[in-house]
Amino acid sequence: MISIGIIGFGRTGSSVCDEVIKDPDLSLSWVLRKNKSEHLFASKKLGHKTDSGKFYSQTEIDADFFSTNKVDLVIDFSNEESANFYYESIIKSGTKIVSAISHYSSGQLLFLKNLSRLNPILYSPNITLGVNWLIVASKILQKIVPNADIEIVEEHFRQKKGVSGTAMKIANHLDLDVNEHINSIRVGGVVGKHEVIFGLPSQTIRLIHESIDRAAFGRGAILGAKWLMSKNTGFYSMEDVLEDKFRTYI
Amino acid sequence: MISIGIIGFGRTGSSVCDEVIKDPDLSLSWVLRKNKSEHLFASKKLGHKTDSGKFYSQTEIDADFFSTNKVDLVIDFSNEESANFYYESIIKSGTKIVSAISHYSSGQLLFLKNLSRLNPILYSPNITLGVNWLIVASKILQKIVPNADIEIVEEHFRQKKGVSGTAMKIANHLDLDVNEHINSIRVGGVVGKHEVIFGLPSQTIRLIHESIDRAAFGRGAILGAKWLMSKNTGFYSMEDVLEDKFRTYI
Amino acid sequence: MISIGIIGFGRTGSSVCDEVIKDPDLSLSWVLRKNKSEHLFASKKLGHKTDSGKFYSQTEIDADFFSTNKVDLVIDFSNEESANFYYESIIKSGTKIVSAISHYSSGQLLFLKNLSRLNPILYSPNITLGVNWLIVASKILQKIVPNADIEIVEEHFRQKKGVSGTAMKIANHLDLDVNEHINSIRVGGVVGKHEVIFGLPSQTIRLIHESIDRAAFGRGAILGAKWLMSKNTGFYSMEDVLEDKFRTYI
Amino acid sequence: MISIGIIGFGRTGSSVCDEVIKDPDLSLSWVLRKNKSEHLFASKKLGHKTDSGKFYSQTEIDADFFSTNKVDLVIDFSNEESANFYYESIIKSGTKIVSAISHYSSGQLLFLKNLSRLNPILYSPNITLGVNWLIVASKILQKIVPNADIEIVEEHFRQKKGVSGTAMKIANHLDLDVNEHINSIRVGGVVGKHEVIFGLPSQTIRLIHESIDRAAFGRGAILGAKWLMSKNTGFYSMEDVLEDKFRTYI
Repeated sequence: MISIGIIGFGRTGSSVCDEVIKDPDLSLSWVLRKNKSEHLFASKKLGHKTDSGKFYSQTEIDADFFSTNKVDLVIDFSNEESANFYYESIIKSGTKIVSAISHYSSGQLLFLKNLSRLNPILYSPNITLGVNWLIVASKILQKIVPNADIEIVEEHFRQKKGVSGTAMKIANHLDLDVNEHINSIRVGGVVGKHEVIFGLPSQTIRLIHESIDRAAFGRGAILGAKWLMSKNTGFYSMEDVLEDKFRTYI
Repeated sequence: MISIGIIGFGRTGSSVCDEVIKDPDLSLSWVLRKNKSEHLFASKKLGHKTDSGKFYSQTEIDADFFSTNKVDLVIDFSNEESANFYYESIIKSGTKIVSAISHYSSGQLLFLKNLSRLNPILYSPNITLGVNWLIVASKILQKIVPNADIEIVEEHFRQKKGVSGTAMKIANHLDLDVNEHINSIRVGGVVGKHEVIFGLPSQTIRLIHESIDRAAFGRGAILGAKWLMSKNTGFYSMEDVLEDKFRTYI
Repeated sequence: MISIGIIGFGRTGSSVCDEVIKDPDLSLSWVLRKNKSEHLFASKKLGHKTDSGKFYSQTEIDADFFSTNKVDLVIDFSNEESANFYYESIIKSGTKIVSAISHYSSGQLLFLKNLSRLNPILYSPNITLGVNWLIVASKILQKIVPNADIEIVEEHFRQKKGVSGTAMKIANHLDLDVNEHINSIRVGGVVGKHEVIFGLPSQTIRLIHESIDRAAFGRGAILGAKWLMSKNTGFYSMEDVLEDKFRTYI
Repeated sequence: MISIGIIGFGRTGSSVCDEVIKDPDLSLSWVLRKNKSEHLFASKKLGHKTDSGKFYSQTEIDADFFSTNKVDLVIDFSNEESANFYYESIIKSGTKIVSAISHYSSGQLLFLKNLSRLNPILYSPNITLGVNWLIVASKILQKIVPNADIEIVEEHFRQKKGVSGTAMKIANHLDLDVNEHINSIRVGGVVGKHEVIFGLPSQTIRLIHESIDRAAFGRGAILGAKWLMSKNTGFYSMEDVLEDKFRTYI
C-alpha cells in the first residue's frame, strides 16, 4: 500500500481524492485544504463510508507537519503557492511529489529541479494518461514519417481563453510552430478535445483525445504516482512516464 | 428526356459527362472541348458502348452552332471565358444554362443576370448537393438557435491555396466573420471536407460533408439542371435549389 | 411570462428547474418532488438567491392542488406513474403538459391522447433540441436523395443497456430496419452521441449530435413548452416542434 | 540503390510501380504482368520520361528468368498463384520478397515460411503504414490501460462484402472477439476508414486511419522493402516492421 497525501480540494482535487480512495493499492492519509470543513474526512465529504483522508486546513500546518504525518507521496492539485510553502518540507521528510499545477514561474521550476535531487518530483500541468499517450505516440509516428503534414486541432468550451496549453505542449514536442499548426475551436457543449492529424499523400492518421470530466486527472496522477514510487531522485513529467510504458510494452 | 450540351472536358467536365450519360432522364447531345479528340463521341472516350456526346472543338463553333445544335440545357464546367464567347448565343437560342465555373468577374455576373431575364441560369462554384444541403440546413438551425457558437472547419489537400471558397460561402450565409470562424487544415491524404459545428451550452450539432471524387460535381449539376427545367427565367444558385427541396419535403 | 410547474426533482429534473429559473420568459411556480426537502424553494437548493419553485412532496398533493396552484404549463421529468396520478387533474385545470418520461404503456399513451383533446400535451422521451433537429433534417435529406445509403451510429457509456431508444426513433423516422442499420458502441468516457451517415457514390454527409450533460434536456423542454403555448389542443412530439421551426425558417 | 522487380500491374500494382519509380533509393528493373503491353517500360505507361520497369508477360518467364534478371527484392501485388509459380525460383536466386496478396491457403503459408529460411519474406495483406502503425500503437495502449473498453469501427464503400480483413486483424491483435467488437459501416462515398476507440471512465482515445487511394499500398510496400533489406532470413509482417520502428524511435 502506498500512503498518499493530497494538497488541494477544489473541483479537481476532490475528484482526485475520490479516485485515490477507490484505488485498492493506495491509502489516502490526509488532505490539505484552504478552509475548515464540516467533515473530518475527505472520504465522508465524498460520500464514502470509510474514514480516510483526514482534513487539515492551512492554518494547522506547521514546520513538522509533513514529517509527523509522513506519507509516501504527495499529490498537489492546489495552486502554485503550495510549492513555496510546503515542497521543501515534503521532500526533506523523505516524501515524493506529483504536481499537476497549471503554471510555475521559471524560478519555481529551478527550485523544484533542485529539490528533486533529494527525492523525485513528477510535474505535469495536463496529467491525463490520454493526452500524454497521444504525445508519445505522435512523436514516434513523426519519426517514422518525417515528411508528414501535421496539424493540431483543439476544441474547448467557449469561455476558455487563449490557445490550450496542452495543444502548445503537443506542438513543442513535435517541433511545430504553435502559431501555424494549432487550430483552436471554441464552442459551447465541448468539454475538451485534442486531435493530432498526420497527413501523408494518400492516407491520414488521426489521434484524438477527449475527456468528459475531471476524474481523468485523478487517474493520471495515480498512474504517475505509482510509477514515481520506483524512482529515488529526479525531475519527471508524464511524457517520461508514458515513454517508459512504451519501452516496457513494445 | 432532357437534351444536354456540355462545355468543358477536363477532369471534372469528363466526370460530369459520365454522370449525364448514365442518367436515364438525360440525353447528352454534344460536348464542346478545347482541342480535337481522337474519338467522335464523349461516350466512347469514357468507355461506354453507345454513341452520345458528339465532340466539337472551339474552332468548329460558329454563330449558329447553338441554334443548329439546340439542346434544352447547357452545363458549363470549362472556364470563365466561355461566358463571354457562348452564353449570349446559348440563351438566345432558347437554352437554359447551369454553370459551375469557379469565378466570374463582377461584370460577368451582371452580364449573366441580364441574360437570365430571357432564359434561366443556375450558377454555383461548388455545385455538390452535399455542400449546398449543409448550407441550407445550417441556416435553418442558426435561426432556431440564434445564440449558438458556430465554427467552420475545412480540410483539404496540402497544396490548396488560401481559405476554401466553399467555407467562405458557408460563413457568408451564416453571417460569420470569415477571418474569425473558419479553421483551415491543410494536410496530405484529404480530398475535401467541410464541417459546421454548432455549440450550445450542453450539446453540439455537427454537419460534415466529405467528397472523394469529382463525380459529386456531376451529380450536383444534374440535380440543378433538372430543377432548372421548371423555370422560365431568373438567376439562381444551388442554395435556391436546395431551399426549394426543403420547402417541398418539410 | 409563462408560469411553470415541474414534476420530478431527480438529476434531470433539477437540471430542468435550473434552466427554467434562468429563463427570463418563464417563472417557476412550484416543484413537485417525492420527498420533503430541507429547502422551501428549488431555487435555493440550486444555489440561486431568489425564491422560486416552491417544493411540494407527493403527500401534500390533493384533488385541488393543480387548480389552486394553477400554472400555464407543467413539465414532467419524474416517472410514468405521474401520468396516472396527476395528468387528468392538470389538464382539467386548464394547464398544458410537456412530458419527457422515458416510457409509457400503450394504455397510458391512449389516455394521454384522449386528455390532449382538452388541453395540449407534448410528449418526447428524448426532448433535446439537437436530436430532434437531426431527425427532421435527416428526413428531408432522405427525401432529396432517396437512394443514399443511411447508417446510424450511437455511442454511449459502457453501462447503457440495449440499443439507444433515440437511435431507434431515428431509424423509425427514416424507415430503416433497426437491426440492420444501427451500430451501437459502448465504451467508457462517452456521454451520448448519435450520428446519421448519408453515403452517396462520391460524397458523404454526416449529422452528429453529442450531449455532455442533462441541461440539454431542460433547454429542449423549454423550447417545447414555449411552442406548446400557442396550441389549444392536440398530442405532439418534439419532431412536430422542430418541423414547425423548419417550416417557419426555410 | 535497391533494385526492385514487381509482379502485378493491376490498379494497385501500377500504383506501386509509380511509387517505386519516384523513390530515389530504388530502381525498378522489371515488371511482370499478365498480358503484353503496347509499352516496353512501366515508366512510359505511367507517364514518366525515363525508361524503367521493363515489361515481361507471363509467357516470357522461364526457369532462369529470376537469376538472369536478378534483383534485390521482388514486390508482389498480383494474386495468390504467383507464389506457386515463381517464389521458389525468386528465393533461390538470392532475392527477397514483399508480398501484399490478399489471401494464401494454409498450405501456401507453410510453403512461404519454409522458403523464408533461405531468404526473407515479408507478407501483409494490408501493407499500408497507417493501419500497421495503428495496430502497434493500439497494442501498446491496451497494455497500459488493460481495463479500457475497446471497439473497432470500419467504414467502407457499399459494395465491400463481409467484415474488413484489416479490422479482423486489428481485433485479433487486441484479443477482441471479432463478432462482438467490430462495427462495420457500408455506405457510398467512403474509400476506407478504420477506427479503434479506447474508452476509459472519463476519457476516450481514438486512433483513426483513412486512405483515399492505392498509393498508400505502394508506400507501405516500399517501407517494408527497405526494412527487409537488413534481414537475411525469416518470415515477417508489416506489424514486425512497425514494432521495430517503435523500438528504434521510442
